[in-house]
Amino acid sequence: MISFDRQNIIKDLSIKTDSKIVLLVMDGVGDLPNEEGKTPLKAANKPIMDSLAKESELGQSIAVFQGITPGSGPGHLSLFGYDPLKYQIGRGILEALGLDVEVGPKDVVARANFATIKNGVIIDRRAGRPASEESKKIVELLSEKIKQIDDVKITFYPGKEHRFVVKFSGEGLFDEVSDADPQKEGHPMEWAKSLNPDSEKMAKIANKLLKEIGEVLKDQPKMNFALLRGFSKHPKLPTFKEIYKLDAAAIATYPMYRGLAKLVGMQIIKTGETIEDEIETLKANWNKYDFFFVHVKKTDSYGEDGNFNEKVKVIENTDRVLKDILALKPDVLIITGDHSTPAPMKSHSWHPVPVLINSKFVRKGLSNVFDEFECARGVLGTISALDLLPLALAHAGKLEKYGA
Amino acid sequence: MISFDRQNIIKDLSIKTDSKIVLLVMDGVGDLPNEEGKTPLKAANKPIMDSLAKESELGQSIAVFQGITPGSGPGHLSLFGYDPLKYQIGRGILEALGLDVEVGPKDVVARANFATIKNGVIIDRRAGRPASEESKKIVELLSEKIKQIDDVKITFYPGKEHRFVVKFSGEGLFDEVSDADPQKEGHPMEWAKSLNPDSEKMAKIANKLLKEIGEVLKDQPKMNFALLRGFSKHPKLPTFKEIYKLDAAAIATYPMYRGLAKLVGMQIIKTGETIEDEIETLKANWNKYDFFFVHVKKTDSYGEDGNFNEKVKVIENTDRVLKDILALKPDVLIITGDHSTPAPMKSHSWHPVPVLINSKFVRKGLSNVFDEFECARGVLGTISALDLLPLALAHAGKLEKYGA
Repeated sequence: MISFDRQNIIKDLSIKTDSKIVLLVMDGVGDLPNEEGKTPLKAANKPIMDSLAKESELGQSIAVFQGITPGSGPGHLSLFGYDPLKYQIGRGILEALGLDVEVGPKDVVARANFATIKNGVIIDRRAGRPASEESKKIVELLSEKIKQIDDVKITFYPGKEHRFVVKFSGEGLFDEVSDADPQKEGHPMEWAKSLNPDSEKMAKIANKLLKEIGEVLKDQPKMNFALLRGFSKHPKLPTFKEIYKLDAAAIATYPMYRGLAKLVGMQIIKTGETIEDEIETLKANWNKYDFFFVHVKKTDSYGEDGNFNEKVKVIENTDRVLKDILALKPDVLIITGDHSTPAPMKSHSWHPVPVLINSKFVRKGLSNVFDEFECARGVLGTISALDLLPLALAHAGKLEKYGA
Repeated sequence: MISFDRQNIIKDLSIKTDSKIVLLVMDGVGDLPNEEGKTPLKAANKPIMDSLAKESELGQSIAVFQGITPGSGPGHLSLFGYDPLKYQIGRGILEALGLDVEVGPKDVVARANFATIKNGVIIDRRAGRPASEESKKIVELLSEKIKQIDDVKITFYPGKEHRFVVKFSGEGLFDEVSDADPQKEGHPMEWAKSLNPDSEKMAKIANKLLKEIGEVLKDQPKMNFALLRGFSKHPKLPTFKEIYKLDAAAIATYPMYRGLAKLVGMQIIKTGETIEDEIETLKANWNKYDFFFVHVKKTDSYGEDGNFNEKVKVIENTDRVLKDILALKPDVLIITGDHSTPAPMKSHSWHPVPVLINSKFVRKGLSNVFDEFECARGVLGTISALDLLPLALAHAGKLEKYGA
């Protein structure tokens, strides 16, 4: 509710101006202190970020609500100002976005697992976790043998290990379909069921497809069947242009983040694989947009690996390129993460995320360094991640006064 | 939504007691640091306020949501505990309140501009911004020539420069009427349109009035026509007495703030033009009420002028009279603002507003001075301005326990 009203109000108050905003997301940047009391942010040698902290407002944000560990989807939607409790993005879509799959308005996508079936019973839901190269070959085999079920076009996309994605393209397909998955091993197959009369065709096609997959793979030792979960259509979200009047661009090295940005109507700019590539892309496109989402992936990846030292290095590397971002003189620069990924936990967590906002209208002077502790005591206080986009617009002079 | 639920709960829990609350609002008090890192609050020599800070809880408040710059209406409603997203006060009403116009339950008011029309085209929406004395004479001419349109009584009230207010009094008038204003110059006149069948009479009367105004003023060189905007009836808000069981009084030198207080059922006490006058009024009425809203206007005015030094002086002046307020021994004293008006921005802003709460039940001891930075790190944290009234009641012993 809150964000629905908020976005309506922001839509009424936002105006188009020439000012430029950069949202620099260090994925999973928040962490926990090690035995020396240092988090990667605190341990990193990051002179530019710390000197920027003196000229900025610090705070910490919560993506969903306190105690909730957000996935990448909710984490980013919240940063973009979309209440993740209102806009729930289907797993199939997220998986498809992560594989750079184009999903059209008539398509339904589902995430799929290779599985092992014996006498109608699913004995391994992951088919012994095959290597990705191995499962990729089976996906290619399926692509060759199965191109259509009835009037619905079928496309397969290989993923990691036992995972792949199926896209169904045709008329009259809706996504209110239960998972075709017994959920537990040693149970007979559960077929897809429509949860709504509109979705009957989709459930029927899904089950027919699974039977055909079973037929094509019947002689495979382990990958002799598949499960389908998270049927979803492309969600309809209001765009950055509609709500914020922003011409927004996304610069990200990983497909899932490009996909999330695309959901909210950002333009995806092709870039390379490193942070330096991303900054070159930013420079080259500086005059074409007024909002840039720049995504740094590796802080999260090393957090997930439990690799404190490498996470520190990614932060230090980001600090080096920050010089080039500042040289572009953005009117507003926000540095934050989408969630915390503490190295000792090797996973996303619920801990608040450090936030830095820089503009010429900041209540600066309280903090000297950018880390979890200074952010917890910063002038911004503890805010919702949903507050960030309105704050960015305000600092950029893009929001008119509310009421007389 | 939130405040509706809140106000229902507060209504159930609030009790009448003898304790007294003072809400001292320094309008627009929050600011940004200057080159020496000082805000007006930090720069001001205010020994009483700072010594009070040691005995109080500090925090900072947000009137609407982060990033939103509130007008005076939403800013004050929020301080009074009324969600400004739920209670949207029409521009016509606010303008009327600002001119001390009495608006009855059957009246509709609209704000009006003198304009210049030529061959049916509005060539100047502000009629060359006449001096207030000049336009006042034209308002007097209209008052003399036009007293009624059909069965509706018309009253004109002069305002600043090209602005004035029209009150329509009669049966069957509703305010769902579009502005009679082309919005842009060089466009033909746009007449008022009813947005709802109930409001047809109001639209018709408004257009008839404008034609008569055009007739009366046809020989004027510039002020030869008028535009009407923000048609509004008096909104129906639950009162302080109903929700909080408070007998509340307002002491304010400017009519708009008296009007806002009246909207929530406060008694308006006549006062003079200075802060000292306001304190004399407070003393003289101390035994008659249990809640006093005392409004200091000039902190905002000097913020709007970009005059840092004069804003400092108003704070110092407020500090001097604070001695007299404390001598009355209020059970609860809150010192805050309705929004920030940073001198370098010369306008209202979205920045959080410093809050000080003093009572004998405070978690005191964390802060030594009252300024934006100490408030950001105060024991209260960052709160919604909607939290202030419940906190005031709690500290005054006027709220019972919720649940057993």
